[in-house]
Amino acid sequence: MKKNPKIVVLGGGTGTFVVLSGLKDKPVDLVAIISMMDSGGSNRILRDEFGLLPTSDIRQCLVALAEDLPDQKILRQLFTYRFHQGVGISGMTFGNLFMAALADIYKDQLKALAEVQRLLHTKGKILPVTLDDVQLLARYENGHQVIGEHAIDEPKHDGSWRIVEMETIPEAAIYREAKKEILTADLIVLGPGDLFTSLIPNLVVRGVREAVKKSKAKKLFILNLMTKYGQTYGFKASEFVETLEKYLGGKVLDYLLVNNNWRIPVSVNKRYKEEKAAIVKDDLKEDGYQVVRADLLSPVEVKKVAGDKIKRSLLRHDPQKLAGEIIKILNYN
Amino acid sequence: MKKNPKIVVLGGGTGTFVVLSGLKDKPVDLVAIISMMDSGGSNRILRDEFGLLPTSDIRQCLVALAEDLPDQKILRQLFTYRFHQGVGISGMTFGNLFMAALADIYKDQLKALAEVQRLLHTKGKILPVTLDDVQLLARYENGHQVIGEHAIDEPKHDGSWRIVEMETIPEAAIYREAKKEILTADLIVLGPGDLFTSLIPNLVVRGVREAVKKSKAKKLFILNLMTKYGQTYGFKASEFVETLEKYLGGKVLDYLLVNNNWRIPVSVNKRYKEEKAAIVKDDLKEDGYQVVRADLLSPVEVKKVAGDKIKRSLLRHDPQKLAGEIIKILNYN
Repeated sequence: MKKNPKIVVLGGGTGTFVVLSGLKDKPVDLVAIISMMDSGGSNRILRDEFGLLPTSDIRQCLVALAEDLPDQKILRQLFTYRFHQGVGISGMTFGNLFMAALADIYKDQLKALAEVQRLLHTKGKILPVTLDDVQLLARYENGHQVIGEHAIDEPKHDGSWRIVEMETIPEAAIYREAKKEILTADLIVLGPGDLFTSLIPNLVVRGVREAVKKSKAKKLFILNLMTKYGQTYGFKASEFVETLEKYLGGKVLDYLLVNNNWRIPVSVNKRYKEEKAAIVKDDLKEDGYQVVRADLLSPVEVKKVAGDKIKRSLLRHDPQKLAGEIIKILNYN
Repeated sequence: MKKNPKIVVLGGGTGTFVVLSGLKDKPVDLVAIISMMDSGGSNRILRDEFGLLPTSDIRQCLVALAEDLPDQKILRQLFTYRFHQGVGISGMTFGNLFMAALADIYKDQLKALAEVQRLLHTKGKILPVTLDDVQLLARYENGHQVIGEHAIDEPKHDGSWRIVEMETIPEAAIYREAKKEILTADLIVLGPGDLFTSLIPNLVVRGVREAVKKSKAKKLFILNLMTKYGQTYGFKASEFVETLEKYLGGKVLDYLLVNNNWRIPVSVNKRYKEEKAAIVKDDLKEDGYQVVRADLLSPVEVKKVAGDKIKRSLLRHDPQKLAGEIIKILNYN
């Protein structure tokens, strides 16, 4: 029997959730390698009070990859649930508490993660990019430094500052299982996702960019739909690509996948203007990589969830459209 | 096909857990009707901050009746887990948070309870005795009153005070499904369990004692092994029975089941002395009911669980021995 091709999705956050949701039902071996630097809300409590690695990004992947059986549907609902009652509990996500309890029962967070995947019957495999407990550090062009993914993601400073350098404190090393999967992948998918808080956090882990470079896999970058104030204010598509390649350590990408459907509701546009976000202008040239343009837009607007303190993007990639294009690229000669 | 006989266990707390654990694998229709007046720890938070009925007693039943499949084993472990980390979370039981999240997702605590039972593949059925949000009130012979199950269970007052009257505030009415099960039972099991905080809380719900009386089921009371300071200090077996029948509204019991194996480790005896507890002296006479004496003692000592602020009894009934005797009584002519 022919083995399924292996797709490794490197990321974290909502973009990765969307990619995994789409790829879940495709005949591929799916591996999600997930950034472990989240420092806001639930994750701060996990790290400071439970002494655990942050799991919010992993939790989203679990939800994306859980099977559609009745039991798993309930568990999936629970994993996306955020408490909005209880003095000490409000704001915590159920999924994070679930994994914290399991980690304590097994005295082993990796075993807990494996058991949760079994319980949710996840398609594919979810791996942390590193097992090291580190914080993200961003240096801006004006010399300022900010520590903590959360503080970088929702900056208190002027959001138009440009980030010129990212690293982790202390240095983090790649989890050997993650390395193994990258090296044996047929396709590595980067993005969509917040450039500096979901994608690059993986690439600044020692060993990741070396593994990506070494891997014979095709390398695909899926561009974001919108810029993000505080991270990629005013970025054009080419700047996303340049920045990513800077952290990849050279011209590593083979394919760029870009949305070309911009029929956006007026209400959404207005909301984005308030957030100082804009459509990512497609100025990409076939400069050593192949640019694939397609309609990737989801017809669904994403609403704010009660109790959720983090802003969520309104425009999303469509999981099915994305997955269709990814599979096409996987099959290119 | 012959229908299984129906056993209704009326209670709450550890004693009920033990009875259900033993009966779980027997060929009977099992119904647990559970007291809903718990007011301590996790339950206080559920009631005051989540606006839910307390679920600690129900949670124990869920654990007792969950199936032994791999997924259910993990969930069962989680349901018994109590957080001991996290400023706002320490002391909360995972199971209570699980049910609180589900109740909020469904906007319906009964539906949440049904779904949890499905998820845990519970043998039998667990029903709240009432859906009313009430507190327990105890009146003592010296005229003092104490409100709240927790305050009665772990009294700040002199634990030798005798309780002369129990009621709920405000009045509670029996849940109609619970009533239906009592009326159609073949055997109703009361005890073992804390007389004033696990057993009688069910009987002071309007409609319960009427249903028990009306039911053609055999009525069995399983006596406690030990007295409890603050509730049954100095009680002999006959006083347990008299008190229970006072709240049952007459001579309703058909069978009394009493332990007759008292080979207790010295260490356990010492611990009980510190807690001003003593063996329940068997002074029972065949006074309208049949007294069944048997070895019911569990060979296992129960240890304190980390993070658990409530005292747990060291001596327990043995689930298998209890279940064996209960089935014998069920089959008496």
